Amino acid sequence: MDIKKYMTQIGQQARQASRELAKADSNKKNKALLSIADLLESSMVTLIAENNKDLDAGKEKGLDEALLDRLALNEERVQGMAEGLRQIAALPDPVGEISDMNYQPSGLQIGKMRVPLGVIGIIYESRPNVTADAAALCLKSGNAAILRGGSEAMHSNQAIAVCIKQGLEQADLPVDVVQVIETTDRDAVGELITMQKYVDVIIPRGGKGLIERISGNARVPVIKHLNGICHVYIDATANRQKAIDIAYNAKTHRYGVCNAMETLLIDADIVADILPELAKMYEQEGVELRCCEKSASVLSGMMDSVVAATEEDWDTEYLAPVLSIRVVGGIDAAMEHIFQHSSGHTESIITEDLSLARRFLAEVDSSSVMVNASTRFADGFEYGLGAEIGISTDKIHARGPVGLEGLTSQKYIVLGDGHIRQ
Amino acid sequence: MDIKKYMTQIGQQARQASRELAKADSNKKNKALLSIADLLESSMVTLIAENNKDLDAGKEKGLDEALLDRLALNEERVQGMAEGLRQIAALPDPVGEISDMNYQPSGLQIGKMRVPLGVIGIIYESRPNVTADAAALCLKSGNAAILRGGSEAMHSNQAIAVCIKQGLEQADLPVDVVQVIETTDRDAVGELITMQKYVDVIIPRGGKGLIERISGNARVPVIKHLNGICHVYIDATANRQKAIDIAYNAKTHRYGVCNAMETLLIDADIVADILPELAKMYEQEGVELRCCEKSASVLSGMMDSVVAATEEDWDTEYLAPVLSIRVVGGIDAAMEHIFQHSSGHTESIITEDLSLARRFLAEVDSSSVMVNASTRFADGFEYGLGAEIGISTDKIHARGPVGLEGLTSQKYIVLGDGHIRQ
Repeated sequence: MDIKKYMTQIGQQARQASRELAKADSNKKNKALLSIADLLESSMVTLIAENNKDLDAGKEKGLDEALLDRLALNEERVQGMAEGLRQIAALPDPVGEISDMNYQPSGLQIGKMRVPLGVIGIIYESRPNVTADAAALCLKSGNAAILRGGSEAMHSNQAIAVCIKQGLEQADLPVDVVQVIETTDRDAVGELITMQKYVDVIIPRGGKGLIERISGNARVPVIKHLNGICHVYIDATANRQKAIDIAYNAKTHRYGVCNAMETLLIDADIVADILPELAKMYEQEGVELRCCEKSASVLSGMMDSVVAATEEDWDTEYLAPVLSIRVVGGIDAAMEHIFQHSSGHTESIITEDLSLARRFLAEVDSSSVMVNASTRFADGFEYGLGAEIGISTDKIHARGPVGLEGLTSQKYIVLGDGHIRQ
Repeated sequence: MDIKKYMTQIGQQARQASRELAKADSNKKNKALLSIADLLESSMVTLIAENNKDLDAGKEKGLDEALLDRLALNEERVQGMAEGLRQIAALPDPVGEISDMNYQPSGLQIGKMRVPLGVIGIIYESRPNVTADAAALCLKSGNAAILRGGSEAMHSNQAIAVCIKQGLEQADLPVDVVQVIETTDRDAVGELITMQKYVDVIIPRGGKGLIERISGNARVPVIKHLNGICHVYIDATANRQKAIDIAYNAKTHRYGVCNAMETLLIDADIVADILPELAKMYEQEGVELRCCEKSASVLSGMMDSVVAATEEDWDTEYLAPVLSIRVVGGIDAAMEHIFQHSSGHTESIITEDLSLARRFLAEVDSSSVMVNASTRFADGFEYGLGAEIGISTDKIHARGPVGLEGLTSQKYIVLGDGHIRQ
């Protein structure tokens, strides 16, 4: 197989399909989404059978349990995919929205129209439901999609792709609006991320390794999520109960997620009052605490095991029941620690002081900055976006949870009546 | 000189200064802008003397007249710079604007706050006024700037840099908010565009060669302007006089600008009625016409010289009194030509038909899409942005004329009262 030729063809087809899709009205796009949802449900048996091929091959290859779990489809998961598609169909169509339309001194009416980006390449790992999710978000936002899933999910992804194609046909949309790459050859990814002529943006979804590899080699712009080293800072002005509730929730609600707290910063003035109770709660959940000297001394004698935090701990996304704790001398020291160690994902301050809250909101440079709330809220559904393709830790284009709007751009539209420039 | 060490220091200083600047209120930033404006005027003699050193060196090196003209400063141009700074001071501050603040079902208030990008690197060629313009736009939008001008303008840029530093000091802002690179070593650019830790975005300003070189090698995101191959399409439903006025204005108002029309598309049904008169007007201005077969036949016998257009003409940004003309069979053929050959800058349709106008606006994928207006209007001032750092032909982040808003991003802000995720 000539990979370059194959990918060029995929790219050309996507570009062509994106032009058709840009013309499609919301009804047509929604019809496709609802048809795909129905087809996924009616293809349940096939989907699970194809998925079993992937699972069998994965077991043979010795994939670990966690990976096999992410790879697995069952009735509930397939229904979840279908439900997700129906929810996306129900969202307002972002394409064509006109804003800031004003008369300028020349008499021209000038405004902005929201438009699709064009062709989006999505590179992901083992979870087959991403195939349906990503296809649906791209379709709704008027973008053609080129999807490259993990090789271990190849059968599952192709089976889902069949449903997508049929759904597009039923809605009279070109089948190339969503293309699932059929080769497991790694060179296909290399082509995809450098085809500037055919691909407008790349969204990698997966671990940090995948994302670094892709953004290191891409010539097409990448919207990416690196890591989530999220901080909660408990100021001396915090309400004690809110501080404990939030610090507990932000760490223990779920461990393997990017918006979980990884480092707790506590003001020196309040640490003796708050940390012992909190530490007991963490201990009951089996959370390992890695403490700075001061926080360790507050807990000394109280806990069975307190691990001394190293410099490396402040820069680590544990994604596990581990928490680093540091005592700081007030908001400036807290923000300095955040500046040095945050990944720019989400930070929260616990305080009853309005001036400090204002400062934290203005000065902390992360995609989400919170006051008196658990970092766990940082996600597209909680933010009212309806759906998300991921959380961007980039600073340009889309930042934070990326929904349909993040998959679009704006162009200027200018309405005149024979206007010429003097 | 150790370029890597020098640039790392510049980067660290910029990052640090950007944190201070993010805290500065509008008054402070405006005070700096107005002080710099005053200092430029009061340093007139020095600026012109330093500029003369550059001009002398340039003449010795045999730079061409056009380049020497771009390089030259005189009283009027220095006053123009000062005036530009005062206009930027008068614009509203984009930083801190909060939008879309709504209660979510959880009871959290969630919205977006407009924030600076951080550190912006600007790479430009010979015009020294860019030093003041770019510094002012970055400063107003809360970004630290690292400026790298052309080596031929080194003395002029350093003299302007002295005024900027003094102005920042007078406003009590860190002088590193604007840093002008003091070396002409090309490796400095290589460092600047790959210092992901210290630089958030690169904006190259200059010819296509410079921009391609930079975006080909950058690891930092680039907001760029490639070429402007702008089209005007005269549909059969056009008002004859508006069509002639606009097609004449879009080509002849100024030649060397990116928003000048380079290709005129005319519907076959109307070409015989419109083109002869228009061609005479172009001829009087000395515009060379490169015609497709059909348009050439319409003009045959009428014009002294009609050049046959080659395939290459459709893809050429002349920036000169040259125009390519093609007859097309209606709006679909026109949009197909635009899809194949446009650089995505600006296209305009001339029509009195509302349905066709709607289609053109929706389907043409360029940063500005116009109806019955000259492409020459595509610029930040005409669009009401107050000032622009350039016109982006990218599809992500900022598209079209880029003003202060394009130099910012948005972060999510979340206000709670002890909210935890269930």
